[in-house]
Amino acid sequence: MSNKSFSLGEIAEFLNAELRGDSQTRISGLNTLLNAGSGELAFLANEKYVSQLADSSAEAVILSAKHIDESQSTAGSYSGALLLLDNPYLGYAQISQWFDPAPTLVPGIHPSAVVDKTAQIGANVAIGPNVVIEADAIIGADCYLGAGSTIGARSQLGEGARICANVSIYHDVSIGCRATLHSGAVIGADGFGFAPTGTGSWQKIYQIGGVVIGDNVEIGACSTIDRGALGDTRIGNGVIIDNHVQIAHNVVIGDNTAMAAYSAVAGSATIGRNCIFAGDACVVGHVNICDNVHIMARSLVTKSIDKPGAFSAVMPLMETREWRKNAVRISQLDSMARRLKALEKKQ
Amino acid sequence: MSNKSFSLGEIAEFLNAELRGDSQTRISGLNTLLNAGSGELAFLANEKYVSQLADSSAEAVILSAKHIDESQSTAGSYSGALLLLDNPYLGYAQISQWFDPAPTLVPGIHPSAVVDKTAQIGANVAIGPNVVIEADAIIGADCYLGAGSTIGARSQLGEGARICANVSIYHDVSIGCRATLHSGAVIGADGFGFAPTGTGSWQKIYQIGGVVIGDNVEIGACSTIDRGALGDTRIGNGVIIDNHVQIAHNVVIGDNTAMAAYSAVAGSATIGRNCIFAGDACVVGHVNICDNVHIMARSLVTKSIDKPGAFSAVMPLMETREWRKNAVRISQLDSMARRLKALEKKQ
Amino acid sequence: MSNKSFSLGEIAEFLNAELRGDSQTRISGLNTLLNAGSGELAFLANEKYVSQLADSSAEAVILSAKHIDESQSTAGSYSGALLLLDNPYLGYAQISQWFDPAPTLVPGIHPSAVVDKTAQIGANVAIGPNVVIEADAIIGADCYLGAGSTIGARSQLGEGARICANVSIYHDVSIGCRATLHSGAVIGADGFGFAPTGTGSWQKIYQIGGVVIGDNVEIGACSTIDRGALGDTRIGNGVIIDNHVQIAHNVVIGDNTAMAAYSAVAGSATIGRNCIFAGDACVVGHVNICDNVHIMARSLVTKSIDKPGAFSAVMPLMETREWRKNAVRISQLDSMARRLKALEKKQ
Repeated sequence: MSNKSFSLGEIAEFLNAELRGDSQTRISGLNTLLNAGSGELAFLANEKYVSQLADSSAEAVILSAKHIDESQSTAGSYSGALLLLDNPYLGYAQISQWFDPAPTLVPGIHPSAVVDKTAQIGANVAIGPNVVIEADAIIGADCYLGAGSTIGARSQLGEGARICANVSIYHDVSIGCRATLHSGAVIGADGFGFAPTGTGSWQKIYQIGGVVIGDNVEIGACSTIDRGALGDTRIGNGVIIDNHVQIAHNVVIGDNTAMAAYSAVAGSATIGRNCIFAGDACVVGHVNICDNVHIMARSLVTKSIDKPGAFSAVMPLMETREWRKNAVRISQLDSMARRLKALEKKQ
Repeated sequence: MSNKSFSLGEIAEFLNAELRGDSQTRISGLNTLLNAGSGELAFLANEKYVSQLADSSAEAVILSAKHIDESQSTAGSYSGALLLLDNPYLGYAQISQWFDPAPTLVPGIHPSAVVDKTAQIGANVAIGPNVVIEADAIIGADCYLGAGSTIGARSQLGEGARICANVSIYHDVSIGCRATLHSGAVIGADGFGFAPTGTGSWQKIYQIGGVVIGDNVEIGACSTIDRGALGDTRIGNGVIIDNHVQIAHNVVIGDNTAMAAYSAVAGSATIGRNCIFAGDACVVGHVNICDNVHIMARSLVTKSIDKPGAFSAVMPLMETREWRKNAVRISQLDSMARRLKALEKKQ
Repeated sequence: MSNKSFSLGEIAEFLNAELRGDSQTRISGLNTLLNAGSGELAFLANEKYVSQLADSSAEAVILSAKHIDESQSTAGSYSGALLLLDNPYLGYAQISQWFDPAPTLVPGIHPSAVVDKTAQIGANVAIGPNVVIEADAIIGADCYLGAGSTIGARSQLGEGARICANVSIYHDVSIGCRATLHSGAVIGADGFGFAPTGTGSWQKIYQIGGVVIGDNVEIGACSTIDRGALGDTRIGNGVIIDNHVQIAHNVVIGDNTAMAAYSAVAGSATIGRNCIFAGDACVVGHVNICDNVHIMARSLVTKSIDKPGAFSAVMPLMETREWRKNAVRISQLDSMARRLKALEKKQ
């Protein structure tokens, strides 16, 4: 898809890698060991793919020294160029941007965009068709706003933010530098706050707080971060959020926490730094989770967690026939436990 | 964020609260007991925050008589003004709208909006940039349509609806008065209906029903309500729906039911009035749930429920190491139950 | 909603059904047996609705021969016209398109659409207001693009695709013929790929693959299909996807697989053909599921499945009081199993 190409020398220099091969060789793409061909760079980061190296047709491979036969200065029978790094996966990640086929954007404001005259637009900003920017918004330098995205009154984007098509940002939202927000993301919608009126109906609680998001944050497609009821919802620096994630009002997420698809945090919960939420890992409201907690897929956190570690709550998969027999026993568990104890006493 | 301010006298009158303090005092914002400062109004609605009252710097506090020391007509050592109400939380909810920082909208049709000439637009309607309104749509008085939202042919909005940016409403959808729909919500997409052809593929069933939504409904960001296959999907009055909720075709939701994020109801299920769905509470298709049922977080309803009450089905969280040991036993439960019974017989 | 009408003769011919009744009778709508009235066509596809036939006021009913009393050539006391088919449900599905109230679209490009001059637009394409089509995109004949939808650079739509309002398609995405994409769907957003830097933060892995989607695919509202990290995410022919579904990077989905709302497949998993995922059925990354696997609602697949069949993993619903007693025992299961075994040994 891309017609970019770079020399192995340039790549080695950027990655600070030891190159064993011709520095003039051109690289025009990245691929897996298995699929890489002429002109393509691959990487070996996982022990279980070592066997794929011998047969790889990659032009060059990023790998670590432990996979080199130092007596021959080669990686077994693989005959292409080598780029040696302590952390090949990180090297692959770092070089991946060079081969990103996403269109580069020409700074400027598309004539169909509707930009309030009180908004401040930084240098080199690219504003796509049908973008709407409301009063007193501030768009930092080098931002990109994709078609149809909307920025509410008084909201701010730090430098270098990439807002994809059809993103909705409400009023009074602050987003740090170098954020990426994918299509369909919604930042600053009302938190879900209602008071019972006493007659069965609900009185809306207007959500008068905002959202404050740090630097270097990624937010996936169709993910939502609600504004605070009172005070702000806060997302730390370096937080990475996948698609369909829900962050409720007044949640606080610590720096560098990662949340896979369908993760959710209910209102006023606080999540520490460097946590990892696997897919569909959810947290009820008003609890605290400390730093370095790993929640496994589809697990619901119902209480605060005050020590680092891995936590799970997922039913194991069975054939439906087996599952039917066993699932019915779950509602008998308390009885079984009592009967077991009674038997033990009789012994 | 707001530069609105109101006197305590005005607020007391609106809330029908007993004011103990200076009616001329200006209030410019709402905040929590802990964070409120000069010029800010707080509330005490939950017994567990009583201890925060003494140290609160709030200008005034909404609270109930039971927290007043009537001998001194004060709330302990808290020295600010008091607004007495039987239901302080409801009072806070009611007054919150006065401090809502959401931009007020000037009625009118933005020149970039595309409004079919057969559409009927009521008085004082504010139509934002790039809004699209198709043929024979009817927009009630005092509605707000945010940038990029679309209203399909023959669809109707009652008076005072607030449609946020990038909401998609298909054709033949009827929405009552004073609805709020948040960004990314989709109303009237096709229900998921397909007939097996007998050769492995699927024949689409065109969804020829519509969606009928009552008055005073809130629908969160990225929530979806599908149109009916035959006949309509129906949402009652006063229903409140959080983000990422899915309502399938021909579902019926009774008045004032509340559904937290990721709640979902599969096709043709009927949900009663005044039900509460916690986050990720889901219901399979074709079942009936009576009024006043409370489904706990992450619980799946697989059968009809015909009596009010609370229902749960969530695996408890464990450290992953513990979870591994126990989870494997779930598939042995039926065997364990049988063996336990056999032991009991031998006694 | 519709003022279309067709004769029973036309309908019988299209469905290849045996008509017992007046071929000139006009049919103006479809409805259920229970609700159908004059001029409406109903169907009897499920044994449990046989009893509704006698009282149906439908003008005509699609049903199978087994519900006919051949001695009288009638369906019991039901007195309307009959359309006999081996598969009445399929017949209903096939005829449903004739009564679809969705507005028909006039080919042409709305003046507010922004179409790059290098894009190729096929014959009879209808491009709605505010649609954005980027450089080198290719739009096949007879496509419909709803208001506010965006098509990225070099992306392709096969003939007859229906893209509803506010759909976001990124660059380098290929979609086959006759696809339907509902509002809020996002195709080609970045997969969730990040490498740990070793200092707690994350290095983004640019997602340089694309998305390739086959023919006759339906994708529901707010569903997301991410682009590949290296190589493409691939969706087969005839795959049907409900709302809020997540397909991660480099997933492969086989032909005719059906995925209900909230189904999700994590990165690099491979799903076979003719699988059925009930609502919220999810699959972890890097596993393989063979053809003809049926995953029940809310079940998480954590390992590869290599034989067809039905699989489940859902906690049964209990009254919360009962659930509390039993759920606490789940963390004691391993202990219970060991104690049970000990007792058995003593016998």
